Amino acid sequence: MRALCFDGTVARVTERPEPEMRDGWAIVDVQVAGVCNTDLEIVRGYMGFTGVLGHELCGVVTEGPAAWKGKRVVSEINFACGACEACARGLGRHCPARTVMGILKADGAMAERIAVPVANLHEVGEGVSDEAAVFAEPLAAAFEILEQVHVTAATRCTVLGDGKLGLLIAQVLHQAGARVLAVGKHEDKLAVLARRGVPAVLLGAWDRAQADVVVEATGTAAGLALAIGATRPRGTLVLKSTVADKASLHLAPLVIHEITVVGSRCGSFPPALRALEARSVDTTSLVSAAFPLERADEALRRAAEPGARKVLIRRD
Amino acid sequence: MRALCFDGTVARVTERPEPEMRDGWAIVDVQVAGVCNTDLEIVRGYMGFTGVLGHELCGVVTEGPAAWKGKRVVSEINFACGACEACARGLGRHCPARTVMGILKADGAMAERIAVPVANLHEVGEGVSDEAAVFAEPLAAAFEILEQVHVTAATRCTVLGDGKLGLLIAQVLHQAGARVLAVGKHEDKLAVLARRGVPAVLLGAWDRAQADVVVEATGTAAGLALAIGATRPRGTLVLKSTVADKASLHLAPLVIHEITVVGSRCGSFPPALRALEARSVDTTSLVSAAFPLERADEALRRAAEPGARKVLIRRD
Repeated sequence: MRALCFDGTVARVTERPEPEMRDGWAIVDVQVAGVCNTDLEIVRGYMGFTGVLGHELCGVVTEGPAAWKGKRVVSEINFACGACEACARGLGRHCPARTVMGILKADGAMAERIAVPVANLHEVGEGVSDEAAVFAEPLAAAFEILEQVHVTAATRCTVLGDGKLGLLIAQVLHQAGARVLAVGKHEDKLAVLARRGVPAVLLGAWDRAQADVVVEATGTAAGLALAIGATRPRGTLVLKSTVADKASLHLAPLVIHEITVVGSRCGSFPPALRALEARSVDTTSLVSAAFPLERADEALRRAAEPGARKVLIRRD
Repeated sequence: MRALCFDGTVARVTERPEPEMRDGWAIVDVQVAGVCNTDLEIVRGYMGFTGVLGHELCGVVTEGPAAWKGKRVVSEINFACGACEACARGLGRHCPARTVMGILKADGAMAERIAVPVANLHEVGEGVSDEAAVFAEPLAAAFEILEQVHVTAATRCTVLGDGKLGLLIAQVLHQAGARVLAVGKHEDKLAVLARRGVPAVLLGAWDRAQADVVVEATGTAAGLALAIGATRPRGTLVLKSTVADKASLHLAPLVIHEITVVGSRCGSFPPALRALEARSVDTTSLVSAAFPLERADEALRRAAEPGARKVLIRRD
């Protein structure tokens, strides 16, 4: 089959063996895959990954249990062992023996087909298009913030970064009832939020008022220093960006202002799928381009361009 | 009066004007002051402070409201405005207009006398010696962790650092019922904990098992990287060290393992004073030397020596 592979140096579309079918797993025919900033970090060396890239997909089950065959699905990305202490506590996303789709020792979704554990599958409702369903993974990561931080109608939230994830997070926090202010660098991206009634401001025009909860989603190491300054004393800073580089920063302000920093990664899919079905989150405006699988390397380059939003990779 | 002053370059005992008496303030005759690592950071440039050093004291009120005169007291160190939003929320320790005793725009306790707001005073019970009461401030900082993090008998806590604060924190968490392991570099310091029934281990012999809550109290920037590795996925890392230097570190593990970092500074005094009265925390073994005020500069140098514990400065 054809797949976008990263060999540690270059990402290119090549011929790969078909994914291996195992007990308790399924084979999914990938219809749409999405490019995430993490993919761009990986081709810069993050995680030391080699193999098929991609961890956002919508597809159809072609092999596996009869109950799943033919179903349109999305898949959670952490492949847990199911037997350890973390798994027993329902934290398979933190299973120390896990592999991670397209990120850690497991082939990813930018391919014709992919093998995933049946336990990771979620059926996609009829009202959700493939192009919307592919957002289930990043949208779940946005919802993860609500699992970790208690947000109310009185909570002032500043979301730093108007990238793909930032735009989802601002919408999710807004829907959760918080008083959100999104801060970004791109007028057209912030306009997506404004159309949804989410207050947004360009970085240069931002008054830098401190908030109860600040979400760092700039995808840059420098964003954290900005985020620390934007968090009120005893406030919470949610750290969403995974960057390969070391960051150099003053930690004393975290102690002096007793700020809580919450590292936040993947979330569970059901809240995300419900939001996609209710259309309470806009994903259509977040797509900036789509490429056929054969030109997936081009999709990656496009996604790395300044101002790019979500780039999709379509079968055929 | 005599006082230990830092002029931005050198700390030396000099003649200073008497502290100014103001409405709502009191003058305290300092009997004992303590040297904290923060003092050592300050003479290395932290906070850009100049003036009388010191923020740990026990003394007697000589001027102020009649109800306080002659009373033996300790004093909280954040001098709040009492009128702003933070103060209204009971968070005077985070008042943006605050001054801080011996740390920020307010003269400190390594002097014959000090002026402090009456609101900051706490009477010391008869059963608590001056030498124990001087620990109220760092002990309150240890208790602050319990204000910020919920600790139960099932909580595995690792305390990194067997400095003055680390030894207090390990005892406080142990008394709170947690399953504490203290990790340090000094056999004699860890022995203080062992005598109190607190499990302790030398850094070299530590198995590095991950804990639910890890307290970083090494006082070094490098300690944070060690602490991140010692925190279980979804666990909590309490950051206690204030260091002047920038730290260079990989932040991705915080996100990947969804670790919560809780910056923690000063605490309120009543729990600390109650523990001193109940003698549930050993402070006697934590004192390694005492100097007269006239030799306070020497006290500072002694406190900076490797292996030093709490160094006291006594009015003589």
